Amino acid sequence: MRAAMNRNTENSGYRAGIVGATGAVGPEILRLLINRKFPAVDIRLLASARSAGKTIEMDGRRWTVEETTEEVFKTLDVAIFSAGAEQSLAFAPAAVKHGCVVIDNSSAFRMNPHVPLVVPEINPHAVDGHAGIIANPNCTTAIALMGLCPLHREFGLKKFIASTYQAVSGSGAEAIVELDVQTRAWARGEPVVSKFYPHQIAFNLLPRVDAFLEDGYTTEEMKMRDEGAKILEIPGLRATTTCVRVPVFRAHSVSISAQFERPVDLERARAAIAAFPGTELDDDPAGNRYPMPLDYTARENCGVGRLRLDGVFENGLAFWVVGDQLWKGAALNAVQIAELLDRRGSLRRAVQPV
Amino acid sequence: MRAAMNRNTENSGYRAGIVGATGAVGPEILRLLINRKFPAVDIRLLASARSAGKTIEMDGRRWTVEETTEEVFKTLDVAIFSAGAEQSLAFAPAAVKHGCVVIDNSSAFRMNPHVPLVVPEINPHAVDGHAGIIANPNCTTAIALMGLCPLHREFGLKKFIASTYQAVSGSGAEAIVELDVQTRAWARGEPVVSKFYPHQIAFNLLPRVDAFLEDGYTTEEMKMRDEGAKILEIPGLRATTTCVRVPVFRAHSVSISAQFERPVDLERARAAIAAFPGTELDDDPAGNRYPMPLDYTARENCGVGRLRLDGVFENGLAFWVVGDQLWKGAALNAVQIAELLDRRGSLRRAVQPV
Repeated sequence: MRAAMNRNTENSGYRAGIVGATGAVGPEILRLLINRKFPAVDIRLLASARSAGKTIEMDGRRWTVEETTEEVFKTLDVAIFSAGAEQSLAFAPAAVKHGCVVIDNSSAFRMNPHVPLVVPEINPHAVDGHAGIIANPNCTTAIALMGLCPLHREFGLKKFIASTYQAVSGSGAEAIVELDVQTRAWARGEPVVSKFYPHQIAFNLLPRVDAFLEDGYTTEEMKMRDEGAKILEIPGLRATTTCVRVPVFRAHSVSISAQFERPVDLERARAAIAAFPGTELDDDPAGNRYPMPLDYTARENCGVGRLRLDGVFENGLAFWVVGDQLWKGAALNAVQIAELLDRRGSLRRAVQPV
Repeated sequence: MRAAMNRNTENSGYRAGIVGATGAVGPEILRLLINRKFPAVDIRLLASARSAGKTIEMDGRRWTVEETTEEVFKTLDVAIFSAGAEQSLAFAPAAVKHGCVVIDNSSAFRMNPHVPLVVPEINPHAVDGHAGIIANPNCTTAIALMGLCPLHREFGLKKFIASTYQAVSGSGAEAIVELDVQTRAWARGEPVVSKFYPHQIAFNLLPRVDAFLEDGYTTEEMKMRDEGAKILEIPGLRATTTCVRVPVFRAHSVSISAQFERPVDLERARAAIAAFPGTELDDDPAGNRYPMPLDYTARENCGVGRLRLDGVFENGLAFWVVGDQLWKGAALNAVQIAELLDRRGSLRRAVQPV
């Protein structure tokens, strides 16, 4: 079903599409487009042929999912893809050819030098002159950078070491079900079966996210370094990352030790974080306050706490960042890119403003 | 109830006591003394007056808990304390005065320069010339060192950065109950109540273990650095640690990036870990094998995996260590210290060998 959005401006909105509407991220994109009043005249939900005809309840309405085809992009101005790299590679070029701007949440185009990779609070200028595709970063990368960027601007980032605590939502809808089902089986005293992950995730940790590379790192770990370097515009940024899946539903946490070019000062660091849009300083040891995944679930801001001078790095800071994997790690950042493109006049308008 | 142990050597054994027998660690000490055939003629379970009279089932017998008093140590040769620093400070000096050697699992004496702090695989020589008290290290420290030590011997440790993933068992028996109760409440769709921790631990992370210090670190974080320096005998060892409680029952995991004095080589690192007693190399990305807390629960060895060259440190290695918090992190290491004292002839014999 198509629905007119924001009726008071219905003659001046975009025709938007969500590719991968039935996954973990798709419905959150729809929710945020609605809640944040993205100027759409139409939002269409797209997915594989297998999911076509399914419906999603949102905002008091029932939305019907259509099959993703090349044809559909002829009637869209902007599409947010969150259906995996294979679907993005299959349909994004056709979408662009038909004049539809693609915001892609997969890894397909992120490191392509001709594709902007954007966190709107960090490098909004990167969207200028885009060629039709704007990439949305890896979820852990986006969340870690929401803590790293304000400190980088203040002190000049040199290198960092990070260990992650990643929620199951980052593996998609099936992984959320897996943690739920395994935990309920445990509570009933029944055998815990692993269907999605190779090992039990309930009450366990999997120190592997994504595929292993030859050097022992995983692709996820390399994304944090390489996408971080591209977004912060620090060529050759050195980083060691260890990515770990934890039995948490949907907010990612990252423990970071970073070294900076210039001497660091805790008060200036705190002020920089507090002033950064999209990031909250959540750091009150006396009050037992520090960012925790449950507090950052369905929250737009990321939280930074446990801020302290690093014990190893000269000009170093250690800190802890938490953010909603489905929102800032995926759907929210993508919607913010769409909003940014709108503000910069970089989206084709379906119907001109009256 | 007292029970004769290892009857075939009952004329040549020790009179052993467990102080804190009703906690999370106490029963594991009893289990390991029995399973590992510690040469005891008698094992007595001691706890606060409140717990006196309680019974513990173990090895097909019912053991009765007695109240800890100064008097009781007159009839003990060795006592393993695991009842918190306050109880250790209250009773350890009296125990020593009465000729009972104390192996103390609390933080009370660990950094006392006159008290050896021992991981038997690492610094067994430190027990020589002890003055009656031998300290058992912090659980996370012991487990992290089981990975760091073989690499230190091979390449010379310079500094390290660690982030921990600590099981609730490290907070004691009440915390194990809390994770259990909260998870079951969640499964029944009931409100989740926090009684022990200040925040929910089920499906959440608490980036705070132990008390906060002035500089923003926690005492747990400082223990990893300071106890690590004492056990490895590296004065002034620099380390940054971030200690995080995770919804896992009883094995701790640690992500470590370490810098060494000498050039590192992955094959030599692997060989050093594989050859180190008490540590297993568990590192087969192709086979999806890496150490996970569920696999190291009730396992004596610690596991090291995810071994790779560090992306930040020159002469650096990144790796992942997992070990049973209740065993190598507490009860097992303490029992191993008792065994070490026995081998070195450093425990008074209750009854001389015939």
